[in-house]
Amino acid sequence: MNAPAREVAAVRSAVTAAVADLPPDALVLVACSGGPDSLALAAGTAFVAQRSTRAGTPRRAEAVVVDHGLQEASAQVADDAAAACRGLGLPAVVVRVEVDGRGEAAARDARYAALDRVADELGAAVVLLGHTLDDQAETVLLGLARGSGARALAGMPATRGRFRRPLLGLRRADTLAACAALHLQPWHDPTNDGSHADASLRSRVRDDALPTLERVLGPGVADALARSAAQLRDDADLLDALADDLLAAARTADGLDVEILDKAPPALRTRALRSAAIAAGSPAGALGRSHVLAVDALVTDWHGQGPVALPGGIAVSRACGRLALNTAPA
Amino acid sequence: MNAPAREVAAVRSAVTAAVADLPPDALVLVACSGGPDSLALAAGTAFVAQRSTRAGTPRRAEAVVVDHGLQEASAQVADDAAAACRGLGLPAVVVRVEVDGRGEAAARDARYAALDRVADELGAAVVLLGHTLDDQAETVLLGLARGSGARALAGMPATRGRFRRPLLGLRRADTLAACAALHLQPWHDPTNDGSHADASLRSRVRDDALPTLERVLGPGVADALARSAAQLRDDADLLDALADDLLAAARTADGLDVEILDKAPPALRTRALRSAAIAAGSPAGALGRSHVLAVDALVTDWHGQGPVALPGGIAVSRACGRLALNTAPA
Repeated sequence: MNAPAREVAAVRSAVTAAVADLPPDALVLVACSGGPDSLALAAGTAFVAQRSTRAGTPRRAEAVVVDHGLQEASAQVADDAAAACRGLGLPAVVVRVEVDGRGEAAARDARYAALDRVADELGAAVVLLGHTLDDQAETVLLGLARGSGARALAGMPATRGRFRRPLLGLRRADTLAACAALHLQPWHDPTNDGSHADASLRSRVRDDALPTLERVLGPGVADALARSAAQLRDDADLLDALADDLLAAARTADGLDVEILDKAPPALRTRALRSAAIAAGSPAGALGRSHVLAVDALVTDWHGQGPVALPGGIAVSRACGRLALNTAPA
Repeated sequence: MNAPAREVAAVRSAVTAAVADLPPDALVLVACSGGPDSLALAAGTAFVAQRSTRAGTPRRAEAVVVDHGLQEASAQVADDAAAACRGLGLPAVVVRVEVDGRGEAAARDARYAALDRVADELGAAVVLLGHTLDDQAETVLLGLARGSGARALAGMPATRGRFRRPLLGLRRADTLAACAALHLQPWHDPTNDGSHADASLRSRVRDDALPTLERVLGPGVADALARSAAQLRDDADLLDALADDLLAAARTADGLDVEILDKAPPALRTRALRSAAIAAGSPAGALGRSHVLAVDALVTDWHGQGPVALPGGIAVSRACGRLALNTAPA
């Protein structure tokens, strides 16, 4: 038997590492769209499961295909992807979701909810997702464009709950090459083509922004963005935990203790104030840096100013050394 | 008298805020290259000083022009900039520096050293620098390209020691408009033109990468990058301080205490290990993320591995629950 292509071996190694901690009878579910990333992932998962089984430690693996119903012929694409997974030896189900609202975020929320539901039904221990280093780099650039701090720049975690992303260290070119080496024919999503007038922001980052950065700054940009993301993730994890501690310490029966907040470092104070605002009912997506800084000024630059209005009809006011976050009267 | 152009007023407000905390007799030194940013800054500084003086609280302001001697006719450019500053009413000196080495970093180090020297000689309280929001956005992108974490992405501080950057909230277009409104003719550095074959990386970021990102992601990208930088600066300040505490706690007479390091969060442990390596003699510029992670593995993934070699001939080894950082034998 010939050695597999380098990219095929890389995908298999990544899957092997991602499921190494699971008990032998745990079910591994792989999410497959039929695109090159998740098709390569499905092939790698099927290989790892079959190798384990041959070695006497059976590993159960199945595939799930989400049909967003957003494009014409999406049902056919989903059926084709499921058929491809079955061709790899993976039992496969198609789940149709209704996307509530428009845009990437709505489709993503619907997709994760569906994957969670299928994982529950099948009793899957983990759900493998096909995101690559290129996806990570795009996510960091999109976070930068929003100006939204370390958490947004930290990109996607390798593990969150039962979701795992084995391919975050591989390039999209690797998954394409792996599919080619295995004679798999991935589906290419037309809405992923940045030249379309209605191309998503992410597609334009992929097809235009990242290539320009690689040309200007050098070919290592995607790697560097992913490396930045990993470091900023560690930072954000610690800072969020410390900010939670600060918020707990500042909570009193009649509001947040201004003196405790004032003594805290800005990195923790602004995070704690943001958390408090979200907990009070301000929607995270609408709560910008300028809102948080206006609340922060009630603590650090107090000169008797009036209440700060936040999205979601929340008003933050300072009195008697306390910050009160209340629903503003209608 | 007509109201000044919006951009002229913005520069004057920024300078006013930047010197508001200084005692009346403090000397303000403004660094001017003759380019649009620093020429607008010099004009704003001259205006603020003269207005204070007319109001009965004299404010002393002077200008300093650094001649890097890197280009033909740089002495002439420097003399012209000094003449422009004198035309604004600012006493001006030209200081010639020898740049030791090549590249942006060498020129920058030489420039700051010269400005510090002149500030000492003149007894200046602060040195104002003309960096704008565009410079900040470029710095963040360059940091991203290196993949070097929150500190690199935090860009330039508004204040560092006696250096102050009043214009970080203004766009380069604002300084150009301010110069035009004041009939000042800024010098345009030919090496700042990204179309030259030998254009610096920063010039290419300015003329190619940032415009592409603005086209793809929207016109708010530079603002968003600057906003990210401000948040990451707060983060980096706190994390560096906490990592210093960790390093102090882990230091023993015979090396760093592995148990203390192992219990620390990754964001602090990797920073502490990086600081320890630099303190032991490894050059900061050559010490990459992969080096730090190899040292980190001595703490968190110990399986009897040998010493880790770092740039600068430093070897890190683990024995008896201690990390030792030593100059490797030649």
